[in-house]
Amino acid sequence: MIKKPVHINGANMKLVIDPEMTLADVLRGQLHLTGTKVSCDKAQCGACNVIMNGKLIFSCVTKMKHVPDDAVITTVEGIGTPDSMHALQLAFVKHGAAQCGFCTPGFIVSGKALLDETLTPTRVEVRDWFQKHKNVCRCTGYKPIVDAVMDAAKLVRGEITVQDLSFKMPEDGKIWGTDYPRPSAVGKTTGTLDYGGDFGIKMPPGTLHLKLVQAQVSHANILSIDTSEAEKMPGVYKVVTHKDVKGKNRITGLITFPTNKGDGWDRPILCDEKVFQFGDALAIVCADTDEHAKDAVAKVQVELEVLPAYMSAPAAMAPDAIEIHPGTPNVYFRQGIIKGEDTTPLMEQADVVVAAENLYVGRQPHLPIESDVAVAYYDDKGNVQIMSKSIGLELHALMIGPGLGLDAGKNLFLSQFPGVGGTFGYKFSPTIEALVGAATMATGLPCFLNLDYYQQITYTGKRSPFFVDLKFGATKEGKIIAMESNWVVDHGPYSEFGDLLTRRGAQFIGAGYGIANIRGAGYTVATNHAWGSAFRAYGSPQSLFASETLMDMLAVKLDMDPLELRYLNAYRPGDTLPSGQVPEVYSMTQLIDIIRPKYQLALKAARIHSTPEKRRGVGVSVGVYGCGLDGPDGAEVWAELLQDGRVQVSTNWEDHGQGADMGLLATSHETLRSMGIKPEQIKLVMNDMNLAPAGGPAGGSRSQFVVGNAVVNGCRQLVNALKKDDGTYMTYDEAVAKGVPTKYIGQWNTAFADATACDVDTGQGRPFVSYMYGVFLAEVEVDTKTGKVQVVKMTLAADVGSIANKTVLDGQMYGGIAQGIGLALTENFEDLKKHRDMLSCGIPYIKDVPDDIEIIYLDSPRDLGPYGASGTGELPLTAPHAAIGNAIYNACGVRILQLPALPEKVLAGLQGKEIPVVTRSIKDPMFV
Amino acid sequence: MIKKPVHINGANMKLVIDPEMTLADVLRGQLHLTGTKVSCDKAQCGACNVIMNGKLIFSCVTKMKHVPDDAVITTVEGIGTPDSMHALQLAFVKHGAAQCGFCTPGFIVSGKALLDETLTPTRVEVRDWFQKHKNVCRCTGYKPIVDAVMDAAKLVRGEITVQDLSFKMPEDGKIWGTDYPRPSAVGKTTGTLDYGGDFGIKMPPGTLHLKLVQAQVSHANILSIDTSEAEKMPGVYKVVTHKDVKGKNRITGLITFPTNKGDGWDRPILCDEKVFQFGDALAIVCADTDEHAKDAVAKVQVELEVLPAYMSAPAAMAPDAIEIHPGTPNVYFRQGIIKGEDTTPLMEQADVVVAAENLYVGRQPHLPIESDVAVAYYDDKGNVQIMSKSIGLELHALMIGPGLGLDAGKNLFLSQFPGVGGTFGYKFSPTIEALVGAATMATGLPCFLNLDYYQQITYTGKRSPFFVDLKFGATKEGKIIAMESNWVVDHGPYSEFGDLLTRRGAQFIGAGYGIANIRGAGYTVATNHAWGSAFRAYGSPQSLFASETLMDMLAVKLDMDPLELRYLNAYRPGDTLPSGQVPEVYSMTQLIDIIRPKYQLALKAARIHSTPEKRRGVGVSVGVYGCGLDGPDGAEVWAELLQDGRVQVSTNWEDHGQGADMGLLATSHETLRSMGIKPEQIKLVMNDMNLAPAGGPAGGSRSQFVVGNAVVNGCRQLVNALKKDDGTYMTYDEAVAKGVPTKYIGQWNTAFADATACDVDTGQGRPFVSYMYGVFLAEVEVDTKTGKVQVVKMTLAADVGSIANKTVLDGQMYGGIAQGIGLALTENFEDLKKHRDMLSCGIPYIKDVPDDIEIIYLDSPRDLGPYGASGTGELPLTAPHAAIGNAIYNACGVRILQLPALPEKVLAGLQGKEIPVVTRSIKDPMFV
Repeated sequence: MIKKPVHINGANMKLVIDPEMTLADVLRGQLHLTGTKVSCDKAQCGACNVIMNGKLIFSCVTKMKHVPDDAVITTVEGIGTPDSMHALQLAFVKHGAAQCGFCTPGFIVSGKALLDETLTPTRVEVRDWFQKHKNVCRCTGYKPIVDAVMDAAKLVRGEITVQDLSFKMPEDGKIWGTDYPRPSAVGKTTGTLDYGGDFGIKMPPGTLHLKLVQAQVSHANILSIDTSEAEKMPGVYKVVTHKDVKGKNRITGLITFPTNKGDGWDRPILCDEKVFQFGDALAIVCADTDEHAKDAVAKVQVELEVLPAYMSAPAAMAPDAIEIHPGTPNVYFRQGIIKGEDTTPLMEQADVVVAAENLYVGRQPHLPIESDVAVAYYDDKGNVQIMSKSIGLELHALMIGPGLGLDAGKNLFLSQFPGVGGTFGYKFSPTIEALVGAATMATGLPCFLNLDYYQQITYTGKRSPFFVDLKFGATKEGKIIAMESNWVVDHGPYSEFGDLLTRRGAQFIGAGYGIANIRGAGYTVATNHAWGSAFRAYGSPQSLFASETLMDMLAVKLDMDPLELRYLNAYRPGDTLPSGQVPEVYSMTQLIDIIRPKYQLALKAARIHSTPEKRRGVGVSVGVYGCGLDGPDGAEVWAELLQDGRVQVSTNWEDHGQGADMGLLATSHETLRSMGIKPEQIKLVMNDMNLAPAGGPAGGSRSQFVVGNAVVNGCRQLVNALKKDDGTYMTYDEAVAKGVPTKYIGQWNTAFADATACDVDTGQGRPFVSYMYGVFLAEVEVDTKTGKVQVVKMTLAADVGSIANKTVLDGQMYGGIAQGIGLALTENFEDLKKHRDMLSCGIPYIKDVPDDIEIIYLDSPRDLGPYGASGTGELPLTAPHAAIGNAIYNACGVRILQLPALPEKVLAGLQGKEIPVVTRSIKDPMFV
Repeated sequence: MIKKPVHINGANMKLVIDPEMTLADVLRGQLHLTGTKVSCDKAQCGACNVIMNGKLIFSCVTKMKHVPDDAVITTVEGIGTPDSMHALQLAFVKHGAAQCGFCTPGFIVSGKALLDETLTPTRVEVRDWFQKHKNVCRCTGYKPIVDAVMDAAKLVRGEITVQDLSFKMPEDGKIWGTDYPRPSAVGKTTGTLDYGGDFGIKMPPGTLHLKLVQAQVSHANILSIDTSEAEKMPGVYKVVTHKDVKGKNRITGLITFPTNKGDGWDRPILCDEKVFQFGDALAIVCADTDEHAKDAVAKVQVELEVLPAYMSAPAAMAPDAIEIHPGTPNVYFRQGIIKGEDTTPLMEQADVVVAAENLYVGRQPHLPIESDVAVAYYDDKGNVQIMSKSIGLELHALMIGPGLGLDAGKNLFLSQFPGVGGTFGYKFSPTIEALVGAATMATGLPCFLNLDYYQQITYTGKRSPFFVDLKFGATKEGKIIAMESNWVVDHGPYSEFGDLLTRRGAQFIGAGYGIANIRGAGYTVATNHAWGSAFRAYGSPQSLFASETLMDMLAVKLDMDPLELRYLNAYRPGDTLPSGQVPEVYSMTQLIDIIRPKYQLALKAARIHSTPEKRRGVGVSVGVYGCGLDGPDGAEVWAELLQDGRVQVSTNWEDHGQGADMGLLATSHETLRSMGIKPEQIKLVMNDMNLAPAGGPAGGSRSQFVVGNAVVNGCRQLVNALKKDDGTYMTYDEAVAKGVPTKYIGQWNTAFADATACDVDTGQGRPFVSYMYGVFLAEVEVDTKTGKVQVVKMTLAADVGSIANKTVLDGQMYGGIAQGIGLALTENFEDLKKHRDMLSCGIPYIKDVPDDIEIIYLDSPRDLGPYGASGTGELPLTAPHAAIGNAIYNACGVRILQLPALPEKVLAGLQGKEIPVVTRSIKDPMFV
């Protein structure tokens, strides 16, 4: 230990510290200045930025021995407070520049350091600054952040006022559809909102710190786990293994389809008989400090019999592959699609047939800036409480309850941390909840587990790659008359939702077009690579990459303009979706009409700007996704008049940065404002099974649509009940006096709108009752020397129904498109040795994403939606990567069939060499 | 555990908490919002005040189960920050309303709650508010706090500006003698300065939390200590007993006088053979959390053989009393005084003789708002580092080193916490340092021990009561010609400094007057009551109470005005102090001249305002105290030009709220300003044995005088060395280029001014080379129904030499007088069963202290003092209680010979009943 004098946020301090600890650890762990976040822990992301002696630094890699004596340090807490916000914080709120908010303090501090250098930065300089200082945001697509810094500089320069950055209430008092700032924005921009890691630090004394003992191989039989040496280590309370788990020690996906050859109980909480993938949890060390837990992890002795690891679907499908889950074949589910006439004769009749094999979208890692984190404790009633980033509280309680030996909602309750960093779907699966629950049950004590970023990458689920073979038969005019598809889903070792994901292939390959006749089948394959969890747009990026790439190839073959080919085939009255469902609106042609002039301008610009070294190109794609869980899908909301005149609206509309608080507030307010309720009079009670009813998981762009409808239902009941004959509304006291109930239960279900699940053989059904539609326009520049692709501009014409909140919506679109750029060009988690951190996994930095992103919304209210809204979040990641792929082809003639379009692949294409691909020989794997 | 949503300082939070924990524990322990302090832990002091839902509350007794959901809580951190201070914080800085600063956040928060109710409070309303809300300050005498609140209200009302509350630099750039705010004021008023308890909370993970196993009896033989059950308790790392202490397991006072019958090695670190007093430390539980440590304390089994407890000097002096320290008599030291002629014949010749027996000042408890606290750790070089409230770093390292088996300054280093709450002298003894040191050495780990307030009261030393028999012989004109004195010091069980304290009786009984002939002796007695530690004005309040009370009795006997009697006897050229020393100035008559008109007005006012129910009275006393450690006493200071042009001034001038930082800055600056150095260019390095040289302990009003002289010496060397021929000064680079050293060692010692220790038989010597002088005027009102005494006004004419800083000085005077009021009327620690907390120990609340306190300073520069300064801190507590006692007599004719003058004693006097007193029969206890 050494003692060090420092000046932090104006306070003169002395600190006793371990010189080997980092400044971030000391700020957070010792001072509880948790505004400073830690993510990558290796100076790749800037979440930990603080200013030291006038210089922006990464506190996560700055060891205390390198902090000079008397260092003057500023953290986000020293820049402004909720009651006294800095210009940057005000501007970030205004522009929705904080979505999940986890990277925000780093950006605010980085922005402050920039403004300390110059008060007149240009947009390019702002972007250069954040690039240079490696500030990464995974939610916003960066544009709102640049907007905010530009406005903050204006405010500091005195060119605008605080009022200009504040919300202006319209005269009608309506916030629906405005840029009302999300309630959590102040906490996010001031660093005062506690995320899981912050929350864990602030748990009661005696809370145990957990560290995982994880498998370092991908497939093995477990011979023994010896914890005795580890349990003797200082500070260790217990090492928990599968023997300590009180229930079935399994996590179940709950809805395993009947034709699935597995039983759905294949995912252990703590591995008992086998290791199924690298990073699988074998034991949990519970100690008084992180360090003590870490020290003891190395002392747990695990004896394994290593088995052959099947690191891709083709490997696991090989005839000699052993069963990963003994008793269940590695190919364990088939989803067919049979729509319209038999396609075999139609293909023969077609003027043109185009086909491609093994169209492939990589194993995209979610790369949230916040890694996974959870706490568990016994509450005062003896129930197990688990807090996490879960975006499906009730669902997860049901999924982990049997494994722990607990009953969801009876003695097991889940809730979210106050702040939840982005999940982008990976928290649709309970990744960590069962572990902390098991530890608390084994020790009786509160437990806290925060994965480090390498664990985040290796322990949480990933987007499952599809191998798609696809064939279109079309008329010479370009009308597609038949589609044949075959797709294989590499779902990793755990079957949870694997069948559901496979069904998405039936629903979204070829979506956007009125294809009357389809035949095909998809297969789910167990492998030893990363287990498949949900990822934004779940299944559609894989499906639409195949059909939108093939659509471009068809245009080439027909020598047609690819946009016009799409226009010709786009949904029109009489057409149906691949599921046979009639679209609820026919906006695709309108969206193409919106894009067309921009597309033509882009083609011109590409021609003008292209040089032999830098080839410009333009590509388009269509995107479609459904709002909901596939089939019947409901939510419940409570609306209650409080004694103080406020209305409390309660539901579990989980937030992971997408703006659940804003959605709930806007939707509630729109219903309640007729009785004079102002936004500040609405108390939101959210995301806690103890306090609020089930809204259902926050995934599949369902919440605004499904939960929103329940909100309207509940609030409307309240308004109607309180309305007096003279048109005014009862007070709480009046209602109580008259015996009028003050609390109402709002409910809504897609089944009310005749949703049905799709058939397992035909894929036909009415899985979603509202969809999002979009058309993507990508403009790229290909460096012919290196093969490196730079996206110059992205345009999206979007139909998401009516708009609940413009700022939140814009943020969703920008952020989804940025992830699409990553998916197209850089993001991957194929090579366990190589893909170990944010940088090597290919996360897009600010200059990987164009500042020029244009979103045009079609005013297209949905009859079934709350105030016309549909969903939003998945749309921007449905097909932007396909547009980029098509733009690459347009730029340089290289057709990339397997993403990401890494420079070496493009370069190989440019050089006329073979582009390396992963192939599979077995086409109908159920019948090997 | 329960989960609770709360809003703290604008942040929306959820907290998992134990519902039985207090809000203060959660704010501090979980959130590290350590601006909120905890002291009494029972709603007696307001240090823990926070505002909850608009109401001021005691967070120390507010259990979390009683904090409503969604409570809106404001702590000091939410009121203002160092970079954005609230009006109250600015005004507290301006008025020196934060001395030690430990109570300050509570006062700021309380003041905020008041201003939230009214922006136009009167002084009376401000005092009523703090009385009602029980805000206790032990340093300031409250007046500066009321001043500050009044000004803060003015600022909020817009009647004054921030500039009005800011320091205005005089044109000559001189801060010496001004109201320049002390450097630590901002940290104290914003709650950002870390005191020991805060520091402990912010120690590295893995720091052990210590709890003491303490004796519940006052005297016993230890048969066994069994730690085995305790060591099995959860979270317990080790239970440390005397067996684990590596050295002699004793604390030594170092300077045990040769004639002391003990060897000075009587004080154990951890008791081994005997328990000597209630609360003695038997073992230390070291655990991961406070709770775990506390739980295990109860499991330590201690087997004792209880012995008779001698709870006062008379009891321990009884012939049948056993030796508390076997081998050493209970009466173990004698200090004689022989000055001038034999007094026996003089007494016979005297016109008037007046005498009193057993004049007694009670066992005053220090009652700092901050209880004792320390941390220890091994540094990176393997040295033991101990941080505490020590006000004698090098001294304490030497005192505890042998006991721990360490060498001070070699492998043992002490330093102060950044913030140190008031000690008022109790930290002249190392109370807790050895315990944490032993624990760290036994475990190898950082250790943290914070006493609770009951432990503070029972484990730390107290002012040692004197039993004084005193006789004056005087002429009929009132000139005292002889004094005979006999005093017995109840020093508790530990001899440390007991001889030194006893010598104070020889030095200060009768001080202030030119008494040529004195005979007498004082005795130090070991008892089983609280061990004697230093307390402000050390020895003089006991001594001067005796002589100033007897002086009043002499005036009565002579029918003289008591002020004029004092004037007649006051030091004039030719007179000497009781030690035979010639006073360095003769200011006592001037001080009486200053007081006289005020005294006469007071007498008139008393006559006018007296009623049969409320009798007013006026009393006076003189006070004298020396500056220094008694005999030779030195300090070292380093002055160093830094490369950036600043000057670093380093010394261990320990701060316990008295303003060491301000003293060092003002004195340094006054020397350095000739070379153009501004205050902000002086870097103070203080109170860390690792970094700065010994300034000597911060006690005995020595620091400004002794250390100050060393500061001048060091800084002057620097100035002289850097001065160029043209009258300008070299830069750092110039000095280096010319080979002129940039660092100078300043030294000073009272031996340079011929200080000598007093003789053990005669008490004659030259113990101090500078003194403080004062005259106290007390105006009181006695409630004749209850006997309760209220001090209406206190006036002090003070000669402290030149003034270094007016604000700091005023605060010292007000605060000392307030403690004098407590000493006179309420403060006590006699009854272990009764005196258990601040309230029952009689700490003065704001309305126990008059708002009307007037201090008049005599401009009386000292030739030997730095820029004319003498000392300051002890003066106001030398004799205010005597003036109050005399005023009581003046009001109602009741003479209180033993303090405190509790209502029941005064009432007994008023009713003509016997006033209960403690007596002793043995007058010359060394020769029983």
